[in-house]
Amino acid sequence: MPFVYINEISKFQGQEVTVKGWLYNIRSSGKIIFPILRDGTGLLQAIVLKNAVSPELFERAKELTQESSLEVTGTVRKVPEGKTAPGGHELDVKDLKIGQLIPADQPFPITPKEHGIEFLMDYRHLWIRSSRQHAILKVRHEIIRAVRNFFDDRGFTLVDTPIFTPAACEGTTTLFEVGYFDEKAYLTQSGQLYNEATAAAFGKVYCFGPTFRAEKSKTRRHLTEFWMVEPEVAYATLEDIMALAEDFITHIVKSVLQHRRSELEVLERDISKLEGIEPPFPRVSYDEAVQSLKASGSNIEWGGDFGGADETLLSQQYDRPILVHRYPAQVKAFYMEPDANRPELALCVDVLAPEGYGEIIGGGQRASRLELVTQRIQEHQLPPEAFDWYLDLRKYGTFPHAGFGMGIERAVAWICGLEHVRETIPFPRMLYRLRP
Amino acid sequence: MPFVYINEISKFQGQEVTVKGWLYNIRSSGKIIFPILRDGTGLLQAIVLKNAVSPELFERAKELTQESSLEVTGTVRKVPEGKTAPGGHELDVKDLKIGQLIPADQPFPITPKEHGIEFLMDYRHLWIRSSRQHAILKVRHEIIRAVRNFFDDRGFTLVDTPIFTPAACEGTTTLFEVGYFDEKAYLTQSGQLYNEATAAAFGKVYCFGPTFRAEKSKTRRHLTEFWMVEPEVAYATLEDIMALAEDFITHIVKSVLQHRRSELEVLERDISKLEGIEPPFPRVSYDEAVQSLKASGSNIEWGGDFGGADETLLSQQYDRPILVHRYPAQVKAFYMEPDANRPELALCVDVLAPEGYGEIIGGGQRASRLELVTQRIQEHQLPPEAFDWYLDLRKYGTFPHAGFGMGIERAVAWICGLEHVRETIPFPRMLYRLRP
Repeated sequence: MPFVYINEISKFQGQEVTVKGWLYNIRSSGKIIFPILRDGTGLLQAIVLKNAVSPELFERAKELTQESSLEVTGTVRKVPEGKTAPGGHELDVKDLKIGQLIPADQPFPITPKEHGIEFLMDYRHLWIRSSRQHAILKVRHEIIRAVRNFFDDRGFTLVDTPIFTPAACEGTTTLFEVGYFDEKAYLTQSGQLYNEATAAAFGKVYCFGPTFRAEKSKTRRHLTEFWMVEPEVAYATLEDIMALAEDFITHIVKSVLQHRRSELEVLERDISKLEGIEPPFPRVSYDEAVQSLKASGSNIEWGGDFGGADETLLSQQYDRPILVHRYPAQVKAFYMEPDANRPELALCVDVLAPEGYGEIIGGGQRASRLELVTQRIQEHQLPPEAFDWYLDLRKYGTFPHAGFGMGIERAVAWICGLEHVRETIPFPRMLYRLRP
Repeated sequence: MPFVYINEISKFQGQEVTVKGWLYNIRSSGKIIFPILRDGTGLLQAIVLKNAVSPELFERAKELTQESSLEVTGTVRKVPEGKTAPGGHELDVKDLKIGQLIPADQPFPITPKEHGIEFLMDYRHLWIRSSRQHAILKVRHEIIRAVRNFFDDRGFTLVDTPIFTPAACEGTTTLFEVGYFDEKAYLTQSGQLYNEATAAAFGKVYCFGPTFRAEKSKTRRHLTEFWMVEPEVAYATLEDIMALAEDFITHIVKSVLQHRRSELEVLERDISKLEGIEPPFPRVSYDEAVQSLKASGSNIEWGGDFGGADETLLSQQYDRPILVHRYPAQVKAFYMEPDANRPELALCVDVLAPEGYGEIIGGGQRASRLELVTQRIQEHQLPPEAFDWYLDLRKYGTFPHAGFGMGIERAVAWICGLEHVRETIPFPRMLYRLRP
């Protein structure tokens, strides 16, 4: 007999089916036992009636322990009016086979009671079976799906940028070093420089893969291994990519609301806050942001970068993401195009998520003149030989272009309403956390 | 004036538009100049008539050099019957602005003439602009899109597995080691072990990301950094995942034929060979494969693994991929489920692409009994402490499951008909090749 998945159970009403999965929960009341099954696609309550099954089967069902693996055969029934059960259907059990009964004296480590976070992280390989982690990772998948669809549907070409990079371009303090045969390589922190090469070949490109940062402090916003999507557009200006970022975020939020609403409910997310994410997003200049922060009590001074606390303060003032643009060039990377009207400013943008979540996107227009990029590389004391190929892009058919990067885990944290990024990725990697 | 992309030019017939891009080629005949533009989405022939533009503009157009960046404004015209031009449309030029003219005495390094492969690889950041590399990477994108759609549409959950792994599970010789704060980490070679954990949480899962192999030999099939997609299915058997692999490959080939036929033509691929890729794919047991190889002159003996030459020999005998199943357990990884009828065999499958391309998929059914997995870890002399979490999957609700992995670059090489995998990824990484 083939088996059916719980999320398709409503198609089999009145029919006999087999479900394969694990015991999520169980309760009994004398002559009736209610095992709840979990198969990865949903939850299903089964009903074992003492006078409908053999005495052996009834005893077997009584002994079931959490996360034991099972094959349950029975008839699918719509839950009667006035009763509730997960998914709206129940299974009248006819047969029940135990794949593996977890002994009651060596139970599944994660129980419905409270556990400390380090314990849960040590058992991450089992913790992901819990309904909350399951919901977060389903939302994560939907966000990634929405990201890809957004760019694919708009004619972008996915061009994977390399993980192994030859040079420590911006100092080695946050880079992971790898022995690469007789050389040293570094794990990528961003695909952007390579995106600039591929944008000249394909016009509109994106890369999407893991990026790495040897973050030595423990914060709720940082992982050492995280996924980033980065679009780059030939002939785009700062204004163009601000509009792109706005459409992009709106699309992602709408996709999650459309496809993963029930998961947001499991997470007790305030969905109304996400439903309000509509363009236009406020455009706030750095100058205005500094004024606003000072008025709110920050000790920021013009010319400095925002700290996490500043970003939180700023983003709490709005009900949707804000586009903070034109930071002082001195706090930004070497490749930023200066504002022609005020060369001390960079044509860049950070997108801050609302509700205090802070930066989820950073980007801008790239410097395109050979002389300027060469000079900036010198000023930032970067090794010029590492940038030979990058300068070729300015020697051969240089062109205006702009792009941005979004960290997936920060977007998941915001959309799911999570305190800490460690729950946004299946197997988080942080300082002191390389296992399981 | 906003600009239009060349792949949408047919919508603007008779209208005046601006195209932004690079000079792909140019020819002239006295009173008429034909610059061909490239914008990443296509090629467009422009027509500059001496008596339709100013003398200055005509002189400017004459001086254009390959890959100079341009803005060309003109009227879109359908190419008359009997004439040919890329894309079927031309642009009657009214204005032409030069973004950057590449000096004729320092020309673009890659010209239509022949270059050596090392030269081209050194200039990979520019080489990707050529029509052949452009076509390969467009096919690559389509393969990746098809992979994701296949699994997303069949209810699989994307669950990213970690890049940093804590233990050298299968010997350190082909692993890249990374200093991870005060510890050592290794770059992943496969997400499979983690997929087995996530399959228990989600039922059907896949991971898709870069994987790493410190391959010390130079071969046409190996990169040190390559992308792999790996599905894993709870309660699936070897037969189930052989059928899944068959559907999967068929879907990918059909998607490329549907969406990237013109790129295959640029590559001069024999498309009829791809059009013949239809299920069922031949199932060939290891026993039969050994017999067949011996008859073809291989010196393979029963019990040994196939070399690249054996795979080539085998796959040349079929017009579609073949599923070679049930290899001797001794040549396969520790986690394979033995065949109940012949325990010396593993319930595994390798898929060999036709035309001599060899292995593109490897997979099988995973051992699910705690005792067996524990014993195999000892037999393979693997560090048991590294597998504590993996054994938990057998302690807590163990379940039959199966999956496979497909290397993207080998699939691209086969579908595009390439000699070497180095052209299948934007920035290949190999022994002696870490740049650009």
